[in-house]
Amino acid sequence: MAEWKIAYDSWKPEEQPLREALCTLGNGNFATRGAAEESSADEKINYPGTYLAGGFNRLVSKVSGKDIENEDLVNWPNWLPLTFRHTGEEGWFELSQVEVTHYRQELDMYQGLLTRQIQFRDSQNRETHITSRRFLSMANPHVAALEWELTPQNWSGEIEVRSALDGRVKNSGVARYRSLASQHLVPLETGQHNDETIFLLTQTTQSHIRMAQVARTRVFVEPPSENYKRETKTGDKAYTEQLLRLSCKKQHPLRIEKVVMLYTSRDFAVSEIKQEACTNVSRLGSFSQLLHEHCRTWRHIWDRCDLEIASNHNAQRILRLHIFHLLQTVSGNTVDLDVGVPARGLHGEAYRGHIFWDELFIFPFLNLRLPELTRELLMYRYRRLPEARYAASQAGYRGAMFPWQSGSNGREESQVIHLNPESGNWLPDNTFLQRHINAAIAYNVWQYYQSTTDLEFLSFYGAEMIFDIAQFWSTIATYNEQKGRFEILHVVGPDEYHTEYPDSEEPGLRNNAYTNVMAAWVIRCALGIAKVLDNTRLEELYEKLHISADDRSRWEDISHKMFVPFIEDGSIIAQFEGYEQLQEFDWEKYKKKHGESMRLDRILESEGDNVNKYKASKQADVIMLFYLFSSEELLALFQSLGYELTEKDISANIDYYENRTSHGSTLSKIVHSWVLARSDRKRSWSNFLEALMSDVSDVQGGTTQEGIHLGAMAGTVDLLQRGYVGLDIRENVLWLNPALPVEVSYIKLQLRYRGHWLTLLLTHQKLLISVDKGFTKKVKIGLKGQVHTLQTGDKKEFEIS
Amino acid sequence: MAEWKIAYDSWKPEEQPLREALCTLGNGNFATRGAAEESSADEKINYPGTYLAGGFNRLVSKVSGKDIENEDLVNWPNWLPLTFRHTGEEGWFELSQVEVTHYRQELDMYQGLLTRQIQFRDSQNRETHITSRRFLSMANPHVAALEWELTPQNWSGEIEVRSALDGRVKNSGVARYRSLASQHLVPLETGQHNDETIFLLTQTTQSHIRMAQVARTRVFVEPPSENYKRETKTGDKAYTEQLLRLSCKKQHPLRIEKVVMLYTSRDFAVSEIKQEACTNVSRLGSFSQLLHEHCRTWRHIWDRCDLEIASNHNAQRILRLHIFHLLQTVSGNTVDLDVGVPARGLHGEAYRGHIFWDELFIFPFLNLRLPELTRELLMYRYRRLPEARYAASQAGYRGAMFPWQSGSNGREESQVIHLNPESGNWLPDNTFLQRHINAAIAYNVWQYYQSTTDLEFLSFYGAEMIFDIAQFWSTIATYNEQKGRFEILHVVGPDEYHTEYPDSEEPGLRNNAYTNVMAAWVIRCALGIAKVLDNTRLEELYEKLHISADDRSRWEDISHKMFVPFIEDGSIIAQFEGYEQLQEFDWEKYKKKHGESMRLDRILESEGDNVNKYKASKQADVIMLFYLFSSEELLALFQSLGYELTEKDISANIDYYENRTSHGSTLSKIVHSWVLARSDRKRSWSNFLEALMSDVSDVQGGTTQEGIHLGAMAGTVDLLQRGYVGLDIRENVLWLNPALPVEVSYIKLQLRYRGHWLTLLLTHQKLLISVDKGFTKKVKIGLKGQVHTLQTGDKKEFEIS
Repeated sequence: MAEWKIAYDSWKPEEQPLREALCTLGNGNFATRGAAEESSADEKINYPGTYLAGGFNRLVSKVSGKDIENEDLVNWPNWLPLTFRHTGEEGWFELSQVEVTHYRQELDMYQGLLTRQIQFRDSQNRETHITSRRFLSMANPHVAALEWELTPQNWSGEIEVRSALDGRVKNSGVARYRSLASQHLVPLETGQHNDETIFLLTQTTQSHIRMAQVARTRVFVEPPSENYKRETKTGDKAYTEQLLRLSCKKQHPLRIEKVVMLYTSRDFAVSEIKQEACTNVSRLGSFSQLLHEHCRTWRHIWDRCDLEIASNHNAQRILRLHIFHLLQTVSGNTVDLDVGVPARGLHGEAYRGHIFWDELFIFPFLNLRLPELTRELLMYRYRRLPEARYAASQAGYRGAMFPWQSGSNGREESQVIHLNPESGNWLPDNTFLQRHINAAIAYNVWQYYQSTTDLEFLSFYGAEMIFDIAQFWSTIATYNEQKGRFEILHVVGPDEYHTEYPDSEEPGLRNNAYTNVMAAWVIRCALGIAKVLDNTRLEELYEKLHISADDRSRWEDISHKMFVPFIEDGSIIAQFEGYEQLQEFDWEKYKKKHGESMRLDRILESEGDNVNKYKASKQADVIMLFYLFSSEELLALFQSLGYELTEKDISANIDYYENRTSHGSTLSKIVHSWVLARSDRKRSWSNFLEALMSDVSDVQGGTTQEGIHLGAMAGTVDLLQRGYVGLDIRENVLWLNPALPVEVSYIKLQLRYRGHWLTLLLTHQKLLISVDKGFTKKVKIGLKGQVHTLQTGDKKEFEIS
Repeated sequence: MAEWKIAYDSWKPEEQPLREALCTLGNGNFATRGAAEESSADEKINYPGTYLAGGFNRLVSKVSGKDIENEDLVNWPNWLPLTFRHTGEEGWFELSQVEVTHYRQELDMYQGLLTRQIQFRDSQNRETHITSRRFLSMANPHVAALEWELTPQNWSGEIEVRSALDGRVKNSGVARYRSLASQHLVPLETGQHNDETIFLLTQTTQSHIRMAQVARTRVFVEPPSENYKRETKTGDKAYTEQLLRLSCKKQHPLRIEKVVMLYTSRDFAVSEIKQEACTNVSRLGSFSQLLHEHCRTWRHIWDRCDLEIASNHNAQRILRLHIFHLLQTVSGNTVDLDVGVPARGLHGEAYRGHIFWDELFIFPFLNLRLPELTRELLMYRYRRLPEARYAASQAGYRGAMFPWQSGSNGREESQVIHLNPESGNWLPDNTFLQRHINAAIAYNVWQYYQSTTDLEFLSFYGAEMIFDIAQFWSTIATYNEQKGRFEILHVVGPDEYHTEYPDSEEPGLRNNAYTNVMAAWVIRCALGIAKVLDNTRLEELYEKLHISADDRSRWEDISHKMFVPFIEDGSIIAQFEGYEQLQEFDWEKYKKKHGESMRLDRILESEGDNVNKYKASKQADVIMLFYLFSSEELLALFQSLGYELTEKDISANIDYYENRTSHGSTLSKIVHSWVLARSDRKRSWSNFLEALMSDVSDVQGGTTQEGIHLGAMAGTVDLLQRGYVGLDIRENVLWLNPALPVEVSYIKLQLRYRGHWLTLLLTHQKLLISVDKGFTKKVKIGLKGQVHTLQTGDKKEFEIS
């Protein structure tokens, strides 16, 4: 079970630099970060944060003084405060005031349980042992639970236990945001529901979302006794506590259970939330019953979602940590909450809770295991179509233009200036020009449909998004007479180092290759969907979205005539038009000084230089194409555009950009590892191992403490599945193209594909596929150019050369 | 187009007794009832009501003085107030103070538009013509719009126009509820957003749901002029108005547009709702642009949902009225709102907004046209599974027991005593024992799956509901050693006249046939699903729901050994055990005195008698079985239970109960019409015509004014589709078994079946089927025992003997 557990043996926060990444619990509703909150030793650390719908204040609004206050990321009232003292003493227990003789903190990912063991000696030479266990229930998104087992080792006497709910929380987890508004909760009411239950009611300052939290505290002494006193304090609107006075006996463990429920005014199937919380908490079972249900749910999730990789134990463990975080952030518990996939998980305050394009890296994993979650997350985008349409029309385009960064109501939330911490300068920020996010959304819809053949979703919702996005691309694209091709101007690609030409006043670039190819792909996809949908729906959509026959013929045109820039001889795709005129960068010099992963934009700006001048990318840009498409699909796509691209060219492109990328984004290593899987397995594996360590080793230098990098975490998982197993759905065939790194002896995984469960076991010699019962009887599997039809119940072994 | 319009030529409310049924607009978000609200003539009439999540106070809580206040049905703030006066005069325009020379009020169902034309002469002999048009946008659920065209016929002069938002609304539409709490809104704030826009913010008293409404008022004079004054009054927290002073010229029409947006704190994709409403209203186009989008959306809906029936025009028109109401209540706009299907539409205050079993009559229509809506409505039930599980456990059962009446949080909301208006007595009410609603929910899940083969839904959500309900039935069923069969005691069937034995102190009946057969069906269905689901999900569900192998073998047992009571010779199914011992009722006597549709329970109680003593049903009970299942399926079901039932027996049963039913429920006529479709077409058609008139003629004597009967309305539509076309999905075949009444020359309809669109044209001689493009190429159609495989693009004609 070692590969399921992650542990620390030091209690000092400074010796747990990554507790955010390693010991965070979430259940899709609320999240708990860190380890020490329930002891008063560390009351000042930042408390659990999680997502609420509600856009956050854009950095610029604070700078420009505009009156926009709009929360996205709001910390929940803290439910953890639980501590004790010996009756008569003034101060409450503090870790720093005692001699810690034993400490162990352990996250059990299989169970979703965080356990802490502390043994300590106080100034009176009293020795005490505390085991604390906590979880956020995966079985019931409203439930959190904490248990203390306190054993006096060498003393008897009366103690006081304090159990509180604290609404005085702030968002102050990111140092450089601390000058911004950090108080997002207005306390409304505290009170006592019954003898063992207290409540706290708060509301967000701007969006007026109400939150009700109740805490039920129970004490169990050995031998059983009801002989203790309880006192409730509710004077403060933002804070309420119960004090329990009880006798301890040497060597007799005392058990305290704190069970908390949380409801918000956005929850479904509730009447009044305070009443709902109070009623429901009294129906809940004991800590151990709740834990049992929680573990069962996690076990079911793991049964679907675990990936076995026979390599070193650490790789397996970290891979599971990534899956664990992914499933803590997105699960059945987030369905109905109308939240998207936050870039920094549920608890990270960096990026203020904004939604970017991380779905692109996360959905491939979910599609093939928990497709209902993808469906719901695509609905998150669908609900924001009206806003995206408005944005397109404001920018002079048709269709829908989704924002690069967004929050509650789907408007653009990207900053327009940002701070370079290296120089202290505020600089214009054009990253909002990353229109390519629209291609990602269309791609995600299509992939979901390919994995599930959920035609109802496609026809009711998905096609509408793809059509509207295709229309956007077709109107942002302009025809260049000279080139005889369509082009897209004034955009930014995934590489955020290049947002304008060095000599230009205008923001954006001409013909970012990734954007142009993806735009062509979306338009082709839209044309293809027209052949799948029934005519009734198709005509409805054409009329609703104002897509004329002329528009469609323009689509056809663009799908064959989109311009893609190439460098010189035509085998290297230029990241954008004019890329070849940039200067080569002195990588050696800067790597020596700043290390492997550096934020070149910030470094150069602080030196008075400009990263826009160099052939230096922050992250995969052109290379993203090789990540999103199998070589078969990509070559066909280029061919339809009238460009010759060969398998060999792909390798050359990878080499070219691999040498010109600083991997200043956590996503970059993954993409590069991926594309190397077939051309350079050794480098691919070492890139993979590095990508695995992104958050665990905080390779971006401090950013992990501000929140995990969810896209990168999911990407490592997807890398195994789509990269090394080589999974790709094309023309109703599930193609497999394995390329197992030599360091891995086997990979085993389960996939839900079009209603079937498939189990895949991949070694260097063989691929074993078994097909579980499914609705349709047959499933088509492609391997080395051959299509095999497998039946429900089949087990088949294929030789891998 | 006459069949698309319904009109009145009198303006007097007392001459429009059914304006609620005939002239109600809804768009799934808010609803507007009546006709005259925007003129001050009728300011005291009750204003538009609609659904908000939030359970309503049970009647008993008021009676017993318990402090439960819990709203379900809350009236929106009224957005309609729009009126005028001549400057200098005191009173505002009142219809009753002028001489009305022409009046016409017309609902155009095709466009979802209500138009009113008024021509009048005032005391100064000024003649004025007003055309008012209004709609609640189907294209944007947040939008309502009202337009006045006012033409001075023989005068010029200055007038004042008043446009207001009024939050002082009450729920007082049902006379007998008026002594209950009727004020459900707390006004929070009014104000002016910009020159042309005012807003009103309110909150529900108990559930704290916030509602923001904004009104944008614009005036257009011919020739164009901006020369008018505007004044805003916002002193009152519950009411705000704008006054516009402008000059009118004889024969020059003046146009006023009032566009309103409404947001609630439960809406998705919003930040702060007041801000959202203000921002978005200023993005909206003109009245005519909004109307254009609204009409387009309605046209698309009609293209899917219209049913052509060539008979008398009125039948066609009323059928469309029913479809219109259904789609106003449930539409794409209600997805994401977590609201179920309210028995009395969006605006009816009767039953206080509670959810019953009306879905059973509504889903068959939606499943085959807008299946995404059914999916969402089934999710409404799924979200309330935890409450249903709790209810089952409290009652001593396992699985999930859904409530007979429910509201926001899914708890049982049935009254436990009720008032007999005939006698003035408060009586115990056992109707909550209608456990059969659980079978309806399972049936609905299965029918949705059959229509769509949405396996993802079935495996993630649907199967869980069916399993939990099967488990409930298997634990409420007890084994009777003597009978050697399972039985279900202490329940009430659909017929609410029989809720206990006349000589018994105990509530409920033994072995209601409908309940028992449905329970057996649910259990068989659960066993069948186990053969469809993949093993991974199946094992998950068994474990999560604690369904053991023993449980399943009990299921098997019950599915063969459920007891069904029969009368005497065994061909007539007894409504419940002991039914045959009840007295025959003197129908002639009572019908003479009370008419055809009577509430016998109330009449007899007021006479000191008890309806429980008689063979007299309020509505179809046993007969429901013949409504829900084709005879093929039902005979097979009885056979598997070890009972011999023949086609002939079905007719005998229908005759038996037809003669013993008072049709005291609007649903009853439909069911009876249905089951007669094959045995007695003439009676079937006359029953159908009567069912059609339920609301239009208010056959239940005054209940229509309290709200439409949505289940009955939907039932008439379903009757055509499933009754006369004889549609039934069995073993992956769409069976058709036409039985066109002689009075109808043809029926034409469109169906969405498993991703295909089918068009059916049924005459007395032929059935023409055309198959539109769909995802799967083939579709199996069964007719007269033969299965035909049709391809995409096929048109096929079948002879009807």
